[in-house]
Order: sequence, then C-alpha cells, then structure tokens
Amino acid sequence: MGTVRTAIPGLDELIEGGYIENDIILVTGGPGAGKTTLGIQYLVGGATNFNEPGVLVVMDGTPERIIRDSWRFGWDIEKLISQKKIKIIYANPFKYTKFTKTPEDRTPCVIVASKNIADTLRQIQIEVEEIQAKRLFIDSITSLKLAVDRTDVRQIVSELIKNLEYLDCTTLMTSEMHSAQSFSIEEYLSSGVIRLHIFRAGGCRLRAIEILKMRGVKHDESLHPYEIQERGIVVHSTETVMNDKISLFDNMGW
Amino acid sequence: MGTVRTAIPGLDELIEGGYIENDIILVTGGPGAGKTTLGIQYLVGGATNFNEPGVLVVMDGTPERIIRDSWRFGWDIEKLISQKKIKIIYANPFKYTKFTKTPEDRTPCVIVASKNIADTLRQIQIEVEEIQAKRLFIDSITSLKLAVDRTDVRQIVSELIKNLEYLDCTTLMTSEMHSAQSFSIEEYLSSGVIRLHIFRAGGCRLRAIEILKMRGVKHDESLHPYEIQERGIVVHSTETVMNDKISLFDNMGW
Amino acid sequence: MGTVRTAIPGLDELIEGGYIENDIILVTGGPGAGKTTLGIQYLVGGATNFNEPGVLVVMDGTPERIIRDSWRFGWDIEKLISQKKIKIIYANPFKYTKFTKTPEDRTPCVIVASKNIADTLRQIQIEVEEIQAKRLFIDSITSLKLAVDRTDVRQIVSELIKNLEYLDCTTLMTSEMHSAQSFSIEEYLSSGVIRLHIFRAGGCRLRAIEILKMRGVKHDESLHPYEIQERGIVVHSTETVMNDKISLFDNMGW
Amino acid sequence: MGTVRTAIPGLDELIEGGYIENDIILVTGGPGAGKTTLGIQYLVGGATNFNEPGVLVVMDGTPERIIRDSWRFGWDIEKLISQKKIKIIYANPFKYTKFTKTPEDRTPCVIVASKNIADTLRQIQIEVEEIQAKRLFIDSITSLKLAVDRTDVRQIVSELIKNLEYLDCTTLMTSEMHSAQSFSIEEYLSSGVIRLHIFRAGGCRLRAIEILKMRGVKHDESLHPYEIQERGIVVHSTETVMNDKISLFDNMGW
Amino acid sequence: MGTVRTAIPGLDELIEGGYIENDIILVTGGPGAGKTTLGIQYLVGGATNFNEPGVLVVMDGTPERIIRDSWRFGWDIEKLISQKKIKIIYANPFKYTKFTKTPEDRTPCVIVASKNIADTLRQIQIEVEEIQAKRLFIDSITSLKLAVDRTDVRQIVSELIKNLEYLDCTTLMTSEMHSAQSFSIEEYLSSGVIRLHIFRAGGCRLRAIEILKMRGVKHDESLHPYEIQERGIVVHSTETVMNDKISLFDNMGW
Amino acid sequence: MGTVRTAIPGLDELIEGGYIENDIILVTGGPGAGKTTLGIQYLVGGATNFNEPGVLVVMDGTPERIIRDSWRFGWDIEKLISQKKIKIIYANPFKYTKFTKTPEDRTPCVIVASKNIADTLRQIQIEVEEIQAKRLFIDSITSLKLAVDRTDVRQIVSELIKNLEYLDCTTLMTSEMHSAQSFSIEEYLSSGVIRLHIFRAGGCRLRAIEILKMRGVKHDESLHPYEIQERGIVVHSTETVMNDKISLFDNMGW
Repeated sequence: MGTVRTAIPGLDELIEGGYIENDIILVTGGPGAGKTTLGIQYLVGGATNFNEPGVLVVMDGTPERIIRDSWRFGWDIEKLISQKKIKIIYANPFKYTKFTKTPEDRTPCVIVASKNIADTLRQIQIEVEEIQAKRLFIDSITSLKLAVDRTDVRQIVSELIKNLEYLDCTTLMTSEMHSAQSFSIEEYLSSGVIRLHIFRAGGCRLRAIEILKMRGVKHDESLHPYEIQERGIVVHSTETVMNDKISLFDNMGW
Repeated sequence: MGTVRTAIPGLDELIEGGYIENDIILVTGGPGAGKTTLGIQYLVGGATNFNEPGVLVVMDGTPERIIRDSWRFGWDIEKLISQKKIKIIYANPFKYTKFTKTPEDRTPCVIVASKNIADTLRQIQIEVEEIQAKRLFIDSITSLKLAVDRTDVRQIVSELIKNLEYLDCTTLMTSEMHSAQSFSIEEYLSSGVIRLHIFRAGGCRLRAIEILKMRGVKHDESLHPYEIQERGIVVHSTETVMNDKISLFDNMGW
Repeated sequence: MGTVRTAIPGLDELIEGGYIENDIILVTGGPGAGKTTLGIQYLVGGATNFNEPGVLVVMDGTPERIIRDSWRFGWDIEKLISQKKIKIIYANPFKYTKFTKTPEDRTPCVIVASKNIADTLRQIQIEVEEIQAKRLFIDSITSLKLAVDRTDVRQIVSELIKNLEYLDCTTLMTSEMHSAQSFSIEEYLSSGVIRLHIFRAGGCRLRAIEILKMRGVKHDESLHPYEIQERGIVVHSTETVMNDKISLFDNMGW
Repeated sequence: MGTVRTAIPGLDELIEGGYIENDIILVTGGPGAGKTTLGIQYLVGGATNFNEPGVLVVMDGTPERIIRDSWRFGWDIEKLISQKKIKIIYANPFKYTKFTKTPEDRTPCVIVASKNIADTLRQIQIEVEEIQAKRLFIDSITSLKLAVDRTDVRQIVSELIKNLEYLDCTTLMTSEMHSAQSFSIEEYLSSGVIRLHIFRAGGCRLRAIEILKMRGVKHDESLHPYEIQERGIVVHSTETVMNDKISLFDNMGW
Repeated sequence: MGTVRTAIPGLDELIEGGYIENDIILVTGGPGAGKTTLGIQYLVGGATNFNEPGVLVVMDGTPERIIRDSWRFGWDIEKLISQKKIKIIYANPFKYTKFTKTPEDRTPCVIVASKNIADTLRQIQIEVEEIQAKRLFIDSITSLKLAVDRTDVRQIVSELIKNLEYLDCTTLMTSEMHSAQSFSIEEYLSSGVIRLHIFRAGGCRLRAIEILKMRGVKHDESLHPYEIQERGIVVHSTETVMNDKISLFDNMGW
Repeated sequence: MGTVRTAIPGLDELIEGGYIENDIILVTGGPGAGKTTLGIQYLVGGATNFNEPGVLVVMDGTPERIIRDSWRFGWDIEKLISQKKIKIIYANPFKYTKFTKTPEDRTPCVIVASKNIADTLRQIQIEVEEIQAKRLFIDSITSLKLAVDRTDVRQIVSELIKNLEYLDCTTLMTSEMHSAQSFSIEEYLSSGVIRLHIFRAGGCRLRAIEILKMRGVKHDESLHPYEIQERGIVVHSTETVMNDKISLFDNMGW
C-alpha cells in the first residue's frame, strides 16, 4: 500500500512515512489549534511538492476567507486553482443566502446549494475525477454536525465517511474537540486520528500534537511540540512534552 | 485586508494591530468582567478617535442604562448620537411592554418591537447605511438565546452571525460565559474570540484577558492582566498572568 | 442618579455608597446565609433611619413567621406597618388553603390569592403607591420558580424582573444558590448580585460576602467576612477572607 | 414562642434549647446515619420525659420493625401506645398487599390504604387530636417521593409540608441524603434542617451532626461528633470535628 | 428475633452474630468482587452446616455455570439438590430461547419462562415451601433491572422486595454497583447492605468489605479486607483498611 | 471444562492457563489499544499452533483492511482461509452500498447484507459448522451499538451474547471503552472482561492490561505492561504497573 506524504515537516516521522493511501484521517483540536492550517498545508504541499492534485471542501467559513488566511504562509491557492491542481467545493451548510449581494472577486469554486450530504458526495466525486485528485480535505465535520438534527448526526456522518472510503483519495477531515474524553463517531470511524492540543504551561500556551490512532501503522505515541511558523505548521518530532509540565486543562479551559 | 483598531490600549498589540475588517469577534466572560464596557469603548473610540461611525444593538438592559453607565468613563454617547456618529437599536427581547409608562428623557434610538431576528437584521442594515457605520456592537447574544426556545437557539444564532458576515462592518458581540469548558455555537462561528476572566488570587480578584482565537492573525496566546480604569479598559500587554498564581476557579465560583 | 443606603453596616462602602436608585439587586446564598435578614434589615433600616417606606413581598413562609424572626434583632415590623412605613404582600405560591383554619393574630397584610405573576405585580404597584414606597424586598424568587412548571420559569422570572425595572423602587430579591457555578436567569437579569457564602474553616463556619456584580458601580471585588449579630448583619469591610484559608466547599457541602 | 425539647442529649444546646413549637424540622443523612433513631427518640423522649404525646407516621418499613429495632435502646413503644402516649399510622406506599397473610402479633396502628397524601394528612389530624399529640415524626419523605411519579414529587411534598405547618405539632421528618450538594424541595421548605454525616477518618467511620439551618434560632454552626449508644443518640456538643481530619467523601462513597 | 449465620468466616462478627431472620440483605459490588460467591456460600453453608435448606434464584447466567464455578470451592450443589437441601429456580430474563438445543446434563431446576415478576415470586413461594427453605439467594437484581423498561424499574424492584419481606426466609440479593455515590432503590428498600470493594493499592488489587447498613443491628463500621480463598470467602474482621492506603478509585476505574 | 489457549504470550498465566471453553470474553480499550490485534492473534494463533479453526466476524472496517493490517505481524490470513482454518463474515452495519464499485482483489468472505442480528447469528452458525471452528472473534460490538437505535441497544446486544453462549465456540469480542467508569451491558453479560489501557507516564504512553473479571477462574488482579511487538502482542506477566507511576488520565484524555 502506498504512503501519502503529510507535507508537514516532522509529522511523517511519527507515522512511518505518511498517511496510508486512501485512508481517512481525522484532525481534531480546539479553536486556534491549527486544524484548518494542517489540512490546507496538506493540499498545497501535495500539489506543489508531490504533484498530487487535491480537492478542498469548505464547510466552515468561505473559500475567500481560507484563501486570504493562506496568504500569511505564502500559499497562493488561486494560482493552484488556475493550474487545475486544486479545486474548491463550497458546501458550508450555514452559507449566506438571504441578502442578494454577490461578493466581488469571488474565488472560482463549485457551490453545493443543497444541505443533502449525497449532493456533496456526488460533487466531490466529480471534482476528484476532473483533476485526478489524490488528496481531499474537508473542513469541517463539526459544521455538518451542527447543521443537522441531533438525531441524524450519526447516520449522516457515517454515511459521509463510508462513502469517502471508496474514493481514490486520501482524505483529511477536521473536527472541533470539546473535550478529550468524549466519544465522537467520526473519531471512531476514521482510520487515523491526530490531536492538536493547546496546553497552558506557566503563562503561555504550548501546542502539542499526538497521534491518537493510525490503523496499520506503528505510530509514535508521545506528545510532541508543534508550531505555526511563517511557512506553516512544523512538528518538532525529536522533542517530547512531559505531562508534569502541563496544566491539567487543555485549551478548552483552565 | 484592513485592520480595525480595538480602541482598547494594549489590545491591538495582542492581535497584530487590530481586528480584521468585517470580521465578527465574540467577547465572552462572566458577570462584571467588562464585556459591555469593551464593546462600548470600541464604538466610542472608533467614533471619537478614528472617525468610524458605529451602531449599538442593545439586547440587554436599556439604552438609557448603557448611556448612564458610560458617563463613568467620560463617554458622552448622546452627543455622538447627535453628531450621527453612533446610532442605537433597542432590540432587547425582554423589554418592558406591560405598563404604558414612557420613560422621560428617552434616548433617541430605534426600537425593534418584534422578536424576529430578521427584523433586527433589517434594522441593522438600515442604520449602518444611514451613518455609513464601520463598527457594530451587539450586547448580548445571551439575551437572544434566553428569549427563544432551546431548540431554536442554534438556528437563530447561526442565522444572525451568517447575515452579519455580509455587512460592511466589523462586529463585536458579547456572550455570557458559564463555564470555560462548554461549547457554544457563537464561539464556533465567530472569526475571533476574546475571553475576559476574573480569577481569584489570594483574597482579591484578578482580571485577565486572553485571545482564544483570531482567524488569519498570529495572535498572542498568553493571559494578560487588564483593568477597568477611569477612562475605560486597559490591557497590560507586557505582563503575563502565571497560572500557578491563580485559583483554579474562575469567577464562576470557587 | 441617586444612591439608596443598604442599611447594612459595612456594605455601603463596598458599592460606592449604596444601591443605584431603581436598580434590582439579587441576594443569593445557601440556607441560613442571611438572605432574608439582609432584605428585612434593608426595609426596616430604610423606614426607620432614612424615612423611606418599603414593601415586603412574602413568597416564602408567612408574614407572621418573618415578623416573629425579626424580633430577635429588635425590629418591630408591626409598628412600622401601623405607621404606614411598611406594607406586606403575602404571595407565597405554596400558602396553605386546605383546612379552613384562620391563624389568630394575623398580621395585617394583603393576600394575593392567585398564582399569576401579573396579579402580584399589580398588587405591588398598588401598595408602592399607597405608602409612596422607595424600597421593595421580595423573598424569594426560588419559591416562585418552584411553584411553576420548569418550562415556564424563564418567562415568568424575566417578566417579573422586567416589570420591576419600571417601578420607582429599589428592589432587593433573594434566591437560593445551589451551586456557585450554575447559571440562573435572575442573576443574569439583575443589575447587581450579592453573594452570601458560608465556608468551612477548621471546624467552624465562616460567613463571607462578595459583590459579584453591580452595574455602573466600581464595586469592591474581595470576599469580606460578615456576621449576624444582635442588631442584624454587619459586614467587616476592612477585613478580607483569603482563599487558602477556606475549605473548597461552600456550605452546600463538603 | 415555645421550645420543644429534642430529647437528644447534647442537641438542645446547639439550637438554643430546642425546636421552635410547630416548626417542621428535616433530619437528613445517608443510610445508617441514625435518622429514624433520632425521630423515635424524639417521640419516646417526649412521651416519657415531657408528657408530650406523639404520632408516628411509618412510610418506610413496618411498625413492627420499628418497634423491634427500638427494643435495643430500651424503648417500649407498645407500652406507650397502650398508655395513649404514642399512636402509629402505617402509611408506607410500598406496603405489601399481594398475598393475604396477616402478620401475627400485629402492633396496634391505623393503616392508611390509599396512596393519596390527603388521606394520610386527614388521618394525621385525627390521631393528633385523639391523643392531643404535640409531637409528630414522619419516616420518611424519601419513600413518599419514590412512590409517586417524578413530575408530581414537588407538588406532593410541598402539599404535605404546607399542611403540616398548620397542625399544632412540632414535626420531625426524615429524608435520605444522596449528595450534600443537591437541592431538595423538602430541605428548602422546612424551617430547620439537621444533617447526620458519616465520615471516614482513617479506617473507621466518624459520625458528625450539623445544624444546616434553623429559622429564627441562632444555631450552632459547627460539626459535632455524635454516637448511637445504648440508650439512643448522644451528641457531643462540646467537641468539634475539624475538617482536615475527615476524608473528603461522606458515607456516600469514597 | 433469631439470627441467621452468614456462613462466611469473619462476617458474623461484624453484624452481631448474623443476619436478622427474614431480613433482606443486599450484596453489592463491582465485577469480580465476589457477590455471587458470597451468596452461594451462604446457601451451601446454610444447608451443610446449619441444616437450613435454601433456594437459589438464577437471574444471571445459568444454573450449570454456577454449579461449575462452585466446584472450585469444593461445593457440590447437585448433591445438595438431590438431598433436597437446595432448589434452583432458573429465572434469567435473558435466557436463551432461539435455537432449540437442549443442554445435556441439565441441572435439575425449575424454569420460569415468563418475564413477569409475579410468576417468579409465585415459584419462589412454591420451592420455599417444598423444602422448607430458610434461606433464599437471588443473583442478581441487576439482570432484572436491565430486562425491563427503565420506567418500570422502580415499581418492579419494589414489588419484588416487598413481597419477599413476607416470606419466611432470610434473603440475600446481589446487585452490580456502578458508582459508590449513586442511589439505587434496592439499597434503599433493603434492611441491610453489604458492599464489596476492590481497591487498587500499589499495583495490586485489595478487596475490602463494609457493612453500609444493617437495620436493628449495631454493626461494624470499618473497611475490612477479605479474600476469595480455596474454600470460599474469608473476611479478616480483625484487620482494617486505612483509607490513606487506597487509591481514590474503586475498581470501577482509575 | 477445557481451557482454550489465548495465543498471547504472557496472557495465559494471568488466567490459569486460558479461556474457559465456550465462554464469551470481552476485550475493551480505547483507540489504538490493540483490541483487534489481540483478537486476530487469538484466531491466527489458534489456527496455526493449536489446530483450532476460527471464524472472524468483521463489523468494523473491511476484511481487506484487517488482512492488510495483519501482514505487519507476519500473519497470512488469506492462506489460512484457503486452508479452511479461518472463515470471514463481513457484517459491518456501515458497509458501503451506494456507489456500485466492486473492490478488486476481494478477500473471500461471506457478506451479510441485512442489519438484522439474527441473520448474522445464523451465518455464524453456518460458518462455524462448516470448518468446525472452535474459536470466534467479533470485531466490534461498538459498531453494532452505533448502527441501531439507542433504545434497541440493550436488547440487541443481549440477544447476540445470549445466542453466542450456545455455540460450541470460545468467543472474543471487542468493544470501545469511553470511560473506565461507565456501565456497559456487554461487560455485564460477558463471562470475562480484559481491559487494555494506554496510560501516560512522563511524555510517553504506557500500555497496560488487566483482567477485570473472568468467571470461574482465580485470575490475576494486577496491571501488567504489554507491548505490540513484531509478531503481535506480548504481555509482560512478571512485571506490574504501579499506580503512582501513571497519570490519572487514561488514553481517553488528560
């Protein structure tokens, strides 16, 4: 089975070289942890360094916002779009529809109007085929869960994940982590789960990454510091975070 | 993308110069933390120092009360209203309607009678256009959430936030924080979240501010002390609060 | 805006001289903390020392009981009633109606038979006008909340508070505090909240008062000891309770 | 107002001489704390030492069982029944009705067959008048709460307590305490609450009593050890239990 | 009133010689604590040493399984059955009915097919009369609670216990303890409750028994170690477990 | 009764030589603990070393995935299938059905299309008979519980376990452990429960196994370290994990 490079310096080493081809990996953490950044870096790195086109499914915010936030790291997503290395699907269930203002300078993307997950899946299949994408990034599962009735959440999330398993893409998905202790169906159904923590140590925050699970891979089991630097996320795989250093509370609280 | 000055001394430094134009920032904290003060200071400072008109949406208390509480800091909101630099929308879902007593010396404001969020949004659009406002402050989301059925909260809050994203205003909103650990939809959907904590240290309280998230900004990640002084809130950005100093309990309790 | 003296020695100093006229202040604490005593002292002190008549709304227990418990402090409420300085409204939703026994020596008071909050509000307005009351004390909001369906609590409490805001009275209300951490709608909607704690220190109890919030006032933020003495409650405003002294548990438990 | 002696050595001193006449006092604690014993001792002591007849309402277990368990302390309840100093009402909502076996040697008592609280109240009134009882002991409120629908608990308990307030009896009631932190309507509506704790200190248990509230009384506020001795409960009112001695967990757990 | 020997070495001493005749005693603890063993030992010991026949009601697992697990201690239940000293009622609500395979070597027992508790009670009465049983052991109440609708649990458990009170048998019942802090109706309605704990001390487990309540008995109140030895359970009544030795978590977790 | 070797070095010693024939053993733990590995090793070891054929029921993931993940340990499941020593039933309730893509190189297995547990049970019976299997491994109960309505979980899980008790197979089942403290019906109904913990010690993870219960067996009661090595799981039965070494939080969190 092939390996797909993470495009995050220091992360490949923790998972025996990369994600397993066609797997579904969940990236979870609190607000500001860097989940979206890790996924965009995965797509941009894949397109730029490994010639692997990718599809971005925006369920949180807007394509324009993500593109703008990516300039900070020197990533020119619009150029990659013009080179047909990245395609964007705008499937935010909370997208604005009331006032008929069309944003100027709209990023080229495909808009999925319906809230039905089957329509989004169909569009994903279309876009993946169109640019022969090998990478897929969905940001984020939490938006999807918030937009549907509580009683439907399980069924819709499992339908999404099960269908994604049959794409010829290696998928990253993000999900907001409320509490390290709660059970979420997306963590259960994913092949791999990466957690991004923000701990408090002294008066500052300390970011730490851990591989919670990665099926079929003898993955690293420690907490490693990571940083959001000028060119994106960097994991310090040779350093470890000792748990007597960190405050009991994650960035979810004190 | 432009930056909007916070008008809080010491706060701009924590978020690379100011809020991102047209973003929606949530200010959250317990009772007495200074959420309303931070928002009023944002509007008054914007009107007075940066020539940026602003709209105030009162969902908690009354316009008269807010104006009176602002005299303490030397802010003359009624004068700014007469100069068309501030407009007030009174949209408190709990406003008094029973006894037909009209308060004397009523502050000029627009009253939104209905509880329908669409009406409030429409009025916001009207007032923003009238004075060409660049700043918007909504106090507070919590009142809105308390006034509707629990099952409608998510939908109404997300409708509000999503519509605000398309205004040409940079919006601050306040929300009461019950517990640092709970998930709230307004925290999730906002671009930025600022938390105002009141910790107990020894026998006194210690106020501390932190930037929980600020999308697209390399924001400060520490706890900094702030004070409510004579001219408003001041953040001591060069000092940090160490978490071994503070009591485990936030001002929510002991 | 005028200030209304608390009539509690040591308390005025903590809130810049007194309550703000026409505000609604919530006094909260566990059983035996002294909530009712603080409110009766407010009324009796106001009538006796400041010539400010007051109305007492009894929602917990009976007028006879409150009068009898007040003798302990040397307060003669029946005399103040005869002097038209205090009026009592008996609006206990749990009042006895089954057996047709009329208590002898009944204290002169107005009985509100219905459980409808509008009737109680109407009666309050009547009594306030009759003696030109400037002070109002409602004991307690908790009885009201227990007497109605859970689903109606929010609406009824907010209706009560919102209507009281338009009276020309400064209102104190009591409420039972189960846990320092829970959110209550009356705390949220009141202008001020005073908490009466009973901590355990060593083998004895230690009473401490704190001003949780007081809108528009630069209030004290520490824990101060208070005592229930022979003439009523006394706050030791120059002393502070350090939180390493006190047991983690409030009088709610251990 | 008169005082009613508790008949528990050491307890009167903690509450200024005794219970206030006609008050309703709740005795709460975990299993084995001695709640029933404290109530029986109150009745037997009242009948034997103070010539105050009493009525016992058995809602938990059977009259036979209570009488048998009282022999241990040398209390001959059946003799007091024959002397018309004690009357028993058997109102256990869980009483056995299926198999038609009548227990031999049945203790003389009045059986309330219905589960309707009004019938029990009526019977109480009858028995109280018959022997001119001044004391009433109901064991226990918890049985009553378990026997009715959850949604009716509040209404039924408050109906019971409110009707009891109009009897010419001083009433003790027992209630099982699950957690020192939970709110119970019977604690709220009673005039006084006495808590019987069983703490763990070292490898043994340590019993401690505290007066949580006693309206109108300047009651003791410490934890005092008590014992179940040969002649009943004895409170060591001159000793105090320091809370650094005791394990954090009450007898509810570890 | 007579005393029934527990048949557990060391246990009689903790409860003044034995169980009170005709009482209902609950034995509670986590998985592997030895609840079933304590009950079987009670029956086998009663039959073998005190000539008191007993009835075993199997609601958890099968009679064959219990007999097989008892060989380990040298107890030959099938021989006691042939001697009419023990009878077995197989009333497991989860018993297998689908595939028509009849287990060979089936232990002689009476099968209660229905799930109706009245049928089980009737059968208990029949079997008790047939061998003039003085002892009854029901394993376990938890199975019964799991097999019925949540809303019926209280009513069914109380019906069971209340009917058992009128048998001429001393009954032991087992129940699974999830948490030492939760309230269970079977603990409340039983005359006695024995808790079997498994604590963690260092890297090993430590078993400890405590008598939580035993009505009418001046029972021991400490934690004592017990062991499951070759001939059954042995309680070390002269030793005590100090609670600074044991880990905070019971065998329910860490 | 016979004993079935676990095929895990070091584990037999903890349970007196092996699982009891025809028992149902639950293996529980968090993500990445090694539950599936332990079960596959059980089947492969049984087939390879003890000539005991086994049936694998895949309810989580796909047969292809499990086979691929097993290569890592040198287990050739497809060869064992061709030798009729292992059979696979693919009964994943979440299996993909939407897009009509048939995976190439499909592993020979029997697909149970329906979600009805009776169909799966029937198929298990068929496959067990076909190869005269003595071992059965179901991975995992959690998938089954997630796929059905919450209200049906108890009934379906108990139906499954109860039917399995009558097979001539010794069954291992896996289940995801959310919290060491919660009650699960599969833990309750299984004869044995093995827990795989991942603790944090310092900056690394420490895997530890414990036998929570094993009916009829005098099982080890300590925490022992285990590792996932090159040839599968190895338990270090002569070493113990002391609980002052480990962090309070299991791998469920911090």
